[in-house]
Amino acid sequence: MPSGSAVNKDLLDERSKCTFDKNEFTLWWVGGKEKLDAKRDREHFCMNQPEFRDSVPLHFASHQEVYEETVRKATAIFSKTRELLKKQGYDANNFVNFMEIMLGDGFIREVNPLRIHFSMFIPSIKAHGSAEQQDRWLQKAVNCEIIGSYAQTELGHGTFLRGLETTATFDEETDEIVINSPRLSSYKWWPGALGHTVNHCIVMAKLYSKGRYHGVNPFMVQIRDEETHMPLSGLEIGEIGHKVGFNGVNNGFLGFKNFRIPRSNMLMKNAKLLRDGTYQKPISSVLNYGTMVFVRVIITRNMAQLLAKAATIAVRYSCVRRQSVIDPNKPEVQVIDHQTQQVKLLPQIAKAIALKLTADNLWEMYEATQVDLETGNTGRLPELHAMACCLKAVSSADTAAGVEVCRLSCGGHGYLTSANFLSMYGLATAAVTYEGENTVLYLQTARYLVKVWNQALKGQQLMPTVRYLEQHATKPVKRFAWSDSTPVIIAAFQAVTANRLRLANEHIQQRVKAGRTPQEATNEAGLELVRLAEIHCRGFILQSAYAAIEQACQTASQPLGEVLREICRLVVYDEALRITGDLLRFTTMSDPDLVELQRKYEASLGAIRPNAVSIVDAFDYPDFILGSTLGAYDGNVYERLFEDAMKSPLNQEPVNRTFELYLKPFMRGKL
Amino acid sequence: MPSGSAVNKDLLDERSKCTFDKNEFTLWWVGGKEKLDAKRDREHFCMNQPEFRDSVPLHFASHQEVYEETVRKATAIFSKTRELLKKQGYDANNFVNFMEIMLGDGFIREVNPLRIHFSMFIPSIKAHGSAEQQDRWLQKAVNCEIIGSYAQTELGHGTFLRGLETTATFDEETDEIVINSPRLSSYKWWPGALGHTVNHCIVMAKLYSKGRYHGVNPFMVQIRDEETHMPLSGLEIGEIGHKVGFNGVNNGFLGFKNFRIPRSNMLMKNAKLLRDGTYQKPISSVLNYGTMVFVRVIITRNMAQLLAKAATIAVRYSCVRRQSVIDPNKPEVQVIDHQTQQVKLLPQIAKAIALKLTADNLWEMYEATQVDLETGNTGRLPELHAMACCLKAVSSADTAAGVEVCRLSCGGHGYLTSANFLSMYGLATAAVTYEGENTVLYLQTARYLVKVWNQALKGQQLMPTVRYLEQHATKPVKRFAWSDSTPVIIAAFQAVTANRLRLANEHIQQRVKAGRTPQEATNEAGLELVRLAEIHCRGFILQSAYAAIEQACQTASQPLGEVLREICRLVVYDEALRITGDLLRFTTMSDPDLVELQRKYEASLGAIRPNAVSIVDAFDYPDFILGSTLGAYDGNVYERLFEDAMKSPLNQEPVNRTFELYLKPFMRGKL
Repeated sequence: MPSGSAVNKDLLDERSKCTFDKNEFTLWWVGGKEKLDAKRDREHFCMNQPEFRDSVPLHFASHQEVYEETVRKATAIFSKTRELLKKQGYDANNFVNFMEIMLGDGFIREVNPLRIHFSMFIPSIKAHGSAEQQDRWLQKAVNCEIIGSYAQTELGHGTFLRGLETTATFDEETDEIVINSPRLSSYKWWPGALGHTVNHCIVMAKLYSKGRYHGVNPFMVQIRDEETHMPLSGLEIGEIGHKVGFNGVNNGFLGFKNFRIPRSNMLMKNAKLLRDGTYQKPISSVLNYGTMVFVRVIITRNMAQLLAKAATIAVRYSCVRRQSVIDPNKPEVQVIDHQTQQVKLLPQIAKAIALKLTADNLWEMYEATQVDLETGNTGRLPELHAMACCLKAVSSADTAAGVEVCRLSCGGHGYLTSANFLSMYGLATAAVTYEGENTVLYLQTARYLVKVWNQALKGQQLMPTVRYLEQHATKPVKRFAWSDSTPVIIAAFQAVTANRLRLANEHIQQRVKAGRTPQEATNEAGLELVRLAEIHCRGFILQSAYAAIEQACQTASQPLGEVLREICRLVVYDEALRITGDLLRFTTMSDPDLVELQRKYEASLGAIRPNAVSIVDAFDYPDFILGSTLGAYDGNVYERLFEDAMKSPLNQEPVNRTFELYLKPFMRGKL
Repeated sequence: MPSGSAVNKDLLDERSKCTFDKNEFTLWWVGGKEKLDAKRDREHFCMNQPEFRDSVPLHFASHQEVYEETVRKATAIFSKTRELLKKQGYDANNFVNFMEIMLGDGFIREVNPLRIHFSMFIPSIKAHGSAEQQDRWLQKAVNCEIIGSYAQTELGHGTFLRGLETTATFDEETDEIVINSPRLSSYKWWPGALGHTVNHCIVMAKLYSKGRYHGVNPFMVQIRDEETHMPLSGLEIGEIGHKVGFNGVNNGFLGFKNFRIPRSNMLMKNAKLLRDGTYQKPISSVLNYGTMVFVRVIITRNMAQLLAKAATIAVRYSCVRRQSVIDPNKPEVQVIDHQTQQVKLLPQIAKAIALKLTADNLWEMYEATQVDLETGNTGRLPELHAMACCLKAVSSADTAAGVEVCRLSCGGHGYLTSANFLSMYGLATAAVTYEGENTVLYLQTARYLVKVWNQALKGQQLMPTVRYLEQHATKPVKRFAWSDSTPVIIAAFQAVTANRLRLANEHIQQRVKAGRTPQEATNEAGLELVRLAEIHCRGFILQSAYAAIEQACQTASQPLGEVLREICRLVVYDEALRITGDLLRFTTMSDPDLVELQRKYEASLGAIRPNAVSIVDAFDYPDFILGSTLGAYDGNVYERLFEDAMKSPLNQEPVNRTFELYLKPFMRGKL
């Protein structure tokens, strides 16, 4: 991946110290030769399309310019990619191919407003539309003759689906459904591309017919004229304003005033509304859990990639930047030679890898259940759903925090938008909230854990990811036998979870005995529940990473195996040192054990340090995907910083007009 | 502070539950009637100046528009304020008055580029200019006939002063000093207002005369023509680009190519350069510590204010927003009734108060030493400097994290720029890096602690803020006797610090014995050192808050005293629960003790909950200072969100031009 200019000497030195085969690492990381080739092809293709590049530097642009440029790129990308895929004989209807080019590789900084068309609008037609409805809309949508969004969240309600306020009332006389936003808080608010981009929308609304309420249902609504793009009468449409990130995505609002759609626009694959207003309930569907598992695994994978990119930037910069002396008789050291810098960055590398392996693991578990699902056996879905909830929460929270650690480790320059941490943080921190707010998700996982804990207490057998609770429930050990081998540390996380679960369960029951309702008692144990769900998840992450790395080591070369095992140890020690309170409480860990763990952690940092640049190189992110002045392969950071600054509109003229307008009169005392 | 519109009913209910006198709280928080009156006068004045308001909504504006609007406001604010202060007979030269109007109250979102003129340029002339030089420049600067910046940081060097590369070489022949940037990394980079605003600058550069190097010295440099504002020949000037925040502040770069200034422009109050090139060293000055203590106390105060503002916004919103039911037969609850929400927000209130009281405490200690200083006794300066270092670090890190917790607690709406968390985060996270990067500051504090620890081991007496180490050094107790009373918890923090200090000291010495240099050994203990400096600081914060609140309770009414003591307990429990690993290790805390501490923490959350809105009301931030759609006094959040969205330029027309340009051809397959 060499660029045109000469590579920084410190980076050359770093790379010469590499102890493993980078290509072998990359193949493992990407998932084999076929995937790597496809990725490189995509990158090559994207890199060579001038229309895919920003025509103006977007970080200096106004909100409107960002949106307009993003639409230009989005349509160019989809057109070009569709062309390419057709030429190559790929299935142009497969949105995953679009997604990987557009988003998986993340080279478009501002997320694309057309994404939701493929990720939500089309899948929703498939999931909720009857055969006749699919005939009516699916091909049009796939061809992008119509472009759609998916509108669920309202100004006043997000997470709590039952609280939605938009109403859809059946008018028997005209065979129409009348949609209304009873008050401002009922306006749809947040759907991507809804502001000015799409002309269709699937709207979730509370259905009423024959004076009765039938729950929240999906409706296909055309919102703009196909020819003029003008909003249809009875609708109020716009975008919701500037945000921390995602400013190209055109999140919108939508208010209804007696807006009529034909009854046949209610999506009726599952529930049905008959001509006479009779409502036929959908078959209750634990299958929805499947979609949620899918979405949250994707988020976790994206988070892992984001964190790996942030670490790539910060590690390279930390090897180029020199600051302070350690030995007063020697020159300033590379920043990464300070132990305090290693502890910021190297665990981020290890965490990114662990998260990716965990998402893969959960996905494989889910796929393995597909056969069961087809035979109607949905037994593992609640379990996998519970794991997907906490995994989405941990991965988004850790990635958001990790990106900021990386940014801050780059000092002042990290604060510059051109370093590209700001856009990564915008993406990561948004994931803490969307698709289930993290605290709510932890509580869902915790509720599942409390449920199975009580099953285990009764001697029932549990599902694989929570099976470890059985022994703790039936044969409780006050203090788990500590040692600092990786499998024992992982088991210690499980012991901590089990003990915290036991305590939380007891505290809930004590409160109920003292007169609280079970709901109140559970609310008052909220803190405990969130924490135990998180530790359960962290144990699963370590277990997944450990298993995947041990498996990789069976075929990996010895040098690569050593690196991967060191990475695994680092993330395990790092996580363990974050819960020393729990380990001292629920295991036999002694004070000298803790000192020894700390020592091993420090040794692990030192062991990875010489390979740090090579590992992030092996993540294989081309410069145009990193999009960072600090993280480029050649390490010419100061030249890139200067070059980006020179693009500032303010730097296009020596004197800004504010001098004559304000500064000069002010300095002359004439303002 | 009621606004025109009706107040949200939930907020009315909250306020009706207030158990204390809000005005009494405000008087305590602000520091007495005189200060409160002055604050209210300032606010009244600012609120009524139309020129002080943004003429365009800046979050939709381009980088250039933000700068231009900020200069307009900055000059208007200074002109108007100068007028007012003159009228009122205040000292118009006193920059603190300007600062409080402009920044202390923080109603200008994008920090003012004129700030550095008052906070660094003028003070530097006073600190480093000889009497003759002060005559030459001071009055001009105070009158703003010249406007200046202060340029120290370079593209390649920040924290490590000795690494600066800009050279100032004395030319004996012409009695001039020739300034050069030997390479790109030597360019000055970051100084506020340097880009396009100021025409003067104090430049820190390495002085050479008679072929010898004389260290880094300050030089007064005119950089732009006073009449035309054109950069002077031999200089390259511009701004450094877009940033996470501070985009109005016009951070700039400055490169020198054989740029000549008269020798008399070297600031010579301390060091001197004589006509023949002889350099006279400054008297070594521990007094510089004084400036650093001052600056870091100011930062800590600002951080406390930021955190209090963020908490105000999030607490109010959490009482207006309803989400999910606790009792299935009752309506959705206010979000703040979820325990998991209380634990996010209420500790931020308590932390903000604790930080403010700690900054006050350190400042009083520093002022108390002024008399000593005048008699040449600088004995306490290194101690206070060590405390100021870690306090700046903890306060900036906790505030940045706390602002983000507040933002995330507001769900999706917190992600909207109009909630105003983004700008607060931009300010807080910048403080993690500027004026001494936090990790570097922790290490400075730690070095001081290691030094005094070794003094204590020899039986020497220590300075007040570290005196607690004496007993731990001379009569070590393996496990400190735990109880969960506030003074004992504070003493436990001290015991933890002392034990960690003892261990780190031992580990350094072990490494030295094993053959490492002391510097290498210290680097390899970096993690331990950073952590112990932080815990030392947290102990000081709790001690300061406790002492200040106990003192306030001597005169406070009983209801206010109860609230303040509850706040103190909350922050003490919160901090203790974050270091349970240390408490279990170094104190006699048992498992039941820990469960009891957790229970008390939860009880404290519950006790503060009913007063939460009233406490943040009592912080007394007017709406125009909070600048938030979610945090206004009247709680009309949805109306405000909608109103702000409607200001988006995209919402000024029903169809954006990208429809005809890109979307329509794309949908017709013609792109």
